[in-house]
Amino acid sequence: MPRDTEQTVDRERNPLAVPGGEQPSSGAALAPERWLIQRLYELIGSPPLQVSLWDGYSVGPHDRDMGITIRDRGALYKLLRQPNLGFGDLYSSGRIEVQGDLKEVMVVLVEHLYRGSDRVPRWLDWMWRDQAREGADLNDARGNIHHHYDLGNEFYSLWLDRAAMQYTCAYFESPDNTLEQAQLAKLEHVCRKLQLEPGQQVIEAGCGWGGLARYMAKHHGVKVRAFNISREQIAYAREKAREEGIADRVEYIEDDYRNISGSCDRFVSVGMLEHVGPANYKALAGVIDRCLHPEGLGLIHTIGRNHPRPINGWIEKRIFPGAYVPSIRELMELFEHQPFSVLDVENLRLHYAQTLEHWLERFREHRDEVARDYDENFVRAWELYLAGSVATFLSGGLQLFQVVFAPPSSNQVPRNRKHMYEQPAAPTEWADG
Amino acid sequence: MPRDTEQTVDRERNPLAVPGGEQPSSGAALAPERWLIQRLYELIGSPPLQVSLWDGYSVGPHDRDMGITIRDRGALYKLLRQPNLGFGDLYSSGRIEVQGDLKEVMVVLVEHLYRGSDRVPRWLDWMWRDQAREGADLNDARGNIHHHYDLGNEFYSLWLDRAAMQYTCAYFESPDNTLEQAQLAKLEHVCRKLQLEPGQQVIEAGCGWGGLARYMAKHHGVKVRAFNISREQIAYAREKAREEGIADRVEYIEDDYRNISGSCDRFVSVGMLEHVGPANYKALAGVIDRCLHPEGLGLIHTIGRNHPRPINGWIEKRIFPGAYVPSIRELMELFEHQPFSVLDVENLRLHYAQTLEHWLERFREHRDEVARDYDENFVRAWELYLAGSVATFLSGGLQLFQVVFAPPSSNQVPRNRKHMYEQPAAPTEWADG
Repeated sequence: MPRDTEQTVDRERNPLAVPGGEQPSSGAALAPERWLIQRLYELIGSPPLQVSLWDGYSVGPHDRDMGITIRDRGALYKLLRQPNLGFGDLYSSGRIEVQGDLKEVMVVLVEHLYRGSDRVPRWLDWMWRDQAREGADLNDARGNIHHHYDLGNEFYSLWLDRAAMQYTCAYFESPDNTLEQAQLAKLEHVCRKLQLEPGQQVIEAGCGWGGLARYMAKHHGVKVRAFNISREQIAYAREKAREEGIADRVEYIEDDYRNISGSCDRFVSVGMLEHVGPANYKALAGVIDRCLHPEGLGLIHTIGRNHPRPINGWIEKRIFPGAYVPSIRELMELFEHQPFSVLDVENLRLHYAQTLEHWLERFREHRDEVARDYDENFVRAWELYLAGSVATFLSGGLQLFQVVFAPPSSNQVPRNRKHMYEQPAAPTEWADG
Repeated sequence: MPRDTEQTVDRERNPLAVPGGEQPSSGAALAPERWLIQRLYELIGSPPLQVSLWDGYSVGPHDRDMGITIRDRGALYKLLRQPNLGFGDLYSSGRIEVQGDLKEVMVVLVEHLYRGSDRVPRWLDWMWRDQAREGADLNDARGNIHHHYDLGNEFYSLWLDRAAMQYTCAYFESPDNTLEQAQLAKLEHVCRKLQLEPGQQVIEAGCGWGGLARYMAKHHGVKVRAFNISREQIAYAREKAREEGIADRVEYIEDDYRNISGSCDRFVSVGMLEHVGPANYKALAGVIDRCLHPEGLGLIHTIGRNHPRPINGWIEKRIFPGAYVPSIRELMELFEHQPFSVLDVENLRLHYAQTLEHWLERFREHRDEVARDYDENFVRAWELYLAGSVATFLSGGLQLFQVVFAPPSSNQVPRNRKHMYEQPAAPTEWADG
């Protein structure tokens, strides 16, 4: 069934609504259920969390103020069948509750999960393993992107930075930078890696709300053609460019990266590759090869991993349909398809953890507004997604890679990276957040 | 037949002696031979070089002062059968001659070869393709390393830098650095990437003549255990450490990387991976995993490629037996075996081209001494190897990757790279070359 037709009326308002909620059960947990929760607790590495059932039975330390409660029998069985999808859905609908700070609990949980993945028997790991989808085709891609990014510009503007609406990892040159400073510093960091020069042509694939494109045009004097398939984002981006008087230098194009044409001196893509899928890396490499000047430079900024693994089933199903996070080896395959020359890889994992902490904090400040516009399930789902992402970046389950590359025969490449660090990365303007 | 027994008496003095040299033929080239040289010239992309046969027949431009002459009939057929091995052997023995500067000719030739690899029909490419060897086992490894590195410390000291005897890529912070400055800057660059602190334990795998180990101990106050299977290099390294009064802080161990034991805060390997082979990456990753502190850092510095390809047949046979240069994707496999977290990759390709230009220049200054100690064939082979390597790095056929990595759950990782560039990389002492 095509994804779009699944979006019934209540999903229009709340794309995270979970069908068929069960009523909380009463009655004491049975002996096999107590045995099961004990085994599950051991499988996840006996973290310092109290894990309780609906009747008060619990495993794990009793002296901690952090814990997880499974509120009904159905929830326990759902969790056992599909732990990732189950945990997310059950937390969203309130059938799993967390005692203590959600982020702290997720950090403890995720750290234990990553450390102890070899405790899970192979058959169970296989049963639990989230199924990775192949790369999205054009129709899928539109549906997937609509699902996530067209939630509403207003929704994202509640908790993203006020400087440039960046829904990607910021760059905290100093740990006490504000989110606004760090997001502008990220833009500048990318520009320096690209060694932009006034008058150059830049193509951006997957431009979000267009902040990077406007920054490049405004602060580095380049001409940008920026592509995105999210209608709401493109509309926002165009409006902003008009407001800022740079609409003649930044063209926002509502189209898929596969349809990019024309030529450029610089190719940049920040936070799009997660939606491309390894099956399409060859197509993307072909697009870059077709567009990029033989002495040009390119940059891809993407979430990555140390080791291939499907994306968490709940995230894939409820938050980012069609997303796939490549391992660094898989990412390097992209650059072998043509082949490009990889010049520089920087891992900004801890910067993403910090970015997410800012987002989570701001999201919480606006939780009532979000609950009013959507509903409580939606708020809980997004809180879990943000808190779980903090935990996953902190524990090393996810990485953030910026890769600079060039066509293979170009010797017009940076000799070293000294030029990157001669000025502070974070400009002061806009940075009042 | 085991490699060692191949080394007959004359190979002891000249490991590059080619068996069964043919006498130059006289007589005019036949019509099919003229046709063949024309076809070969087109296959390599019609470079701006005059390619001549023994009777004066030539193809390509006549107005250039750069050219290649094939001096006998046998040489032509050898070249057609095995172009890579053939070119090297025939040049070494003087049956191919080069008009103009060897390096310039190689640059033109290699650039055309890399640009035009799709001109070669598939069956011919397959026939010509150099066979990659799997990773070397322990006995092979000793033979291979003996072949190259035990040529004599005296031989290498003629043309390597006088500061630290580095037979790996230097770091030219400024293009006009001397070789000595650039090699010291490389050592310092590596130390900064490793964020060395006094008192730390460092393990170095494949330490060459021990220059990095001594530099780390002397300038960063760490204790180093450095491994190498080349007896001559180890003897030189120990002697130097005694001379410099740091023998208590640097231990040189004559052993294979697979036998490394003990623990360390930092793991470093500069220019060894080329001799390891992808089949042994898992073993190497296992060694690092066993030794490296969970909050430690590691660095691997290696020649690499944009795309997998066997090493040039002549280089593999005559210069570096058992060597294999990984593509960046293959290199990343090393870090997925455990898995480590890749923090930083820097590509120093153009620095290697410049390093090799210095080596070639110095080698030429000492060509008479080398010819006296070995013979003319040997000198020509090494000149070709150095000039060809300049050309290959310049054309993008080879890359130089420095990879910084950490155990997956460590958050004790550099936040950014600013600290790398706060001081000039090249210390002034020793840098009088």
